[in-house]
Amino acid sequence: MQNPFDQKKQSILKEISANELTPDASPKGTIDEMCIPIIDLINSNKDMVTTSSCSGRVSVFLEGVKDILDVNDVQIGAKGNYGHWLFVTHDPKSLPNWYKSIDFKYDTDEQLKLSSMIDQKSRFILFKFEPLILHVKCRDLQMANALYTSAMGCGFRETGIGSNNIVGIRISIKLDVPIGYLNKSTTGEELISFVTQDYLQIITQLSEDRFKENFKKLDSLYKAIEQLNSKAVSSSATTEKQESKEDRKQRKMAEGLARREAVRAEKELKKLQKLAQQQQHPDGPENPSQ
Amino acid sequence: MQNPFDQKKQSILKEISANELTPDASPKGTIDEMCIPIIDLINSNKDMVTTSSCSGRVSVFLEGVKDILDVNDVQIGAKGNYGHWLFVTHDPKSLPNWYKSIDFKYDTDEQLKLSSMIDQKSRFILFKFEPLILHVKCRDLQMANALYTSAMGCGFRETGIGSNNIVGIRISIKLDVPIGYLNKSTTGEELISFVTQDYLQIITQLSEDRFKENFKKLDSLYKAIEQLNSKAVSSSATTEKQESKEDRKQRKMAEGLARREAVRAEKELKKLQKLAQQQQHPDGPENPSQ
Repeated sequence: MQNPFDQKKQSILKEISANELTPDASPKGTIDEMCIPIIDLINSNKDMVTTSSCSGRVSVFLEGVKDILDVNDVQIGAKGNYGHWLFVTHDPKSLPNWYKSIDFKYDTDEQLKLSSMIDQKSRFILFKFEPLILHVKCRDLQMANALYTSAMGCGFRETGIGSNNIVGIRISIKLDVPIGYLNKSTTGEELISFVTQDYLQIITQLSEDRFKENFKKLDSLYKAIEQLNSKAVSSSATTEKQESKEDRKQRKMAEGLARREAVRAEKELKKLQKLAQQQQHPDGPENPSQ
Repeated sequence: MQNPFDQKKQSILKEISANELTPDASPKGTIDEMCIPIIDLINSNKDMVTTSSCSGRVSVFLEGVKDILDVNDVQIGAKGNYGHWLFVTHDPKSLPNWYKSIDFKYDTDEQLKLSSMIDQKSRFILFKFEPLILHVKCRDLQMANALYTSAMGCGFRETGIGSNNIVGIRISIKLDVPIGYLNKSTTGEELISFVTQDYLQIITQLSEDRFKENFKKLDSLYKAIEQLNSKAVSSSATTEKQESKEDRKQRKMAEGLARREAVRAEKELKKLQKLAQQQQHPDGPENPSQ
């Protein structure tokens, strides 16, 4: 009979393994490729299991319809009610010229006094860079504290431990830029950009910088967790037979490697299969799992 | 002889009491007025003490000089090395027309191809809305967990417990907008805005919305902590004499109220005294304490 943590871990690992191959509810549809190595590393530690992850992304979101109740009511980044992504990527290589694929009308002429055209109900278009975020459930508070310390040491300054020993690993490399709004005219709805294409190009470049910084942080976190794992192994080696512990580690690593390779191969296949039918923009549901 | 938590709490309270009246190292110089009621409320609970706070603010920051080491080096929001605030406020009433007090050169002409004029070393001007953040040291993990649960219940979704039972109460109502850069020309340095005044007006309005949302959240957190405090009182009333507990609560509340009033009166006086000498913009040090 397994204890509750091990039961939970087993069921999460089953889910992860399924999600790596099939689309889930997030706009991306699968676990980010960039996250797989660190997820595998964390899950190779018997006292930790990842519960959610995002390797970092750029997204462009059109707010939903706002049901404003009174003059003080504000609905920032309104989800639901037709709120949806115009663009999402976890891969900096997909960034260049993203805005050319969106039917923006550029309206930056100061004579128009744009600011007088927006009000409480305006549905804004928000450009965001969001960094790596990881949630890791730990067996006990001791493990949660050790992971917390490692993450803080790598500069993940907004990391914290939540309920049930779940560690949220967070950092604040961000961009959060209103770039336009939805205009309703007699001829229909149009996406107005109240910044220039040149400005969109600048924030795209700045997002590339943030991706670089983000992946550097991901690397240093990976190394810190490697250290944490090796410590865990050596400290429990004193109570167990050292030989079998080492064997187990080797086997786990080999299994992880084989599994990762299998997932990658499967993904490549899926990608090729999808290419024909998926030339439109990702347009996710209300509550992405990442 | 006091236990370590009580010693720590006493020394922090002394510091807070000093900071409320005299400038500290932050760009604002004192504890935000909007934070004082919730700080007093938290500190009226014998098992909690606030260690840092910011009620929410808008800031405009010019990045510092960047010592770029290689092509992959990025220094986002570089502090130090002449990085400094061009504008900071915790008060939405100080927001309107903030940009008119800064000597911006507006350069949004697409013909200039601004994006080709910026590089790794460019020092950007960043406009930010940052929401309420509170750090609260708790006597033990039980208290930290209770506070964590209350904050999460109010929508402070990025709350977490750190080391030494310090709870970081965080929310992600943000704006993080690059609005310009520092240009070095033959005639000297100039602050270039690569967005229009109209756009600055829009993000100013959106910041006002975020302030509203932020203060709503602050209110709901205040109420949740009131509940937490009353629960703490009633649960310990079962083990102590109910009469003396109630007396103590009343006395603490009266003391807190009197102290708050005294601080307010003192602040009003200080404000009047400062008005003559302080008509320039806050221009803080590198590492704000808030």
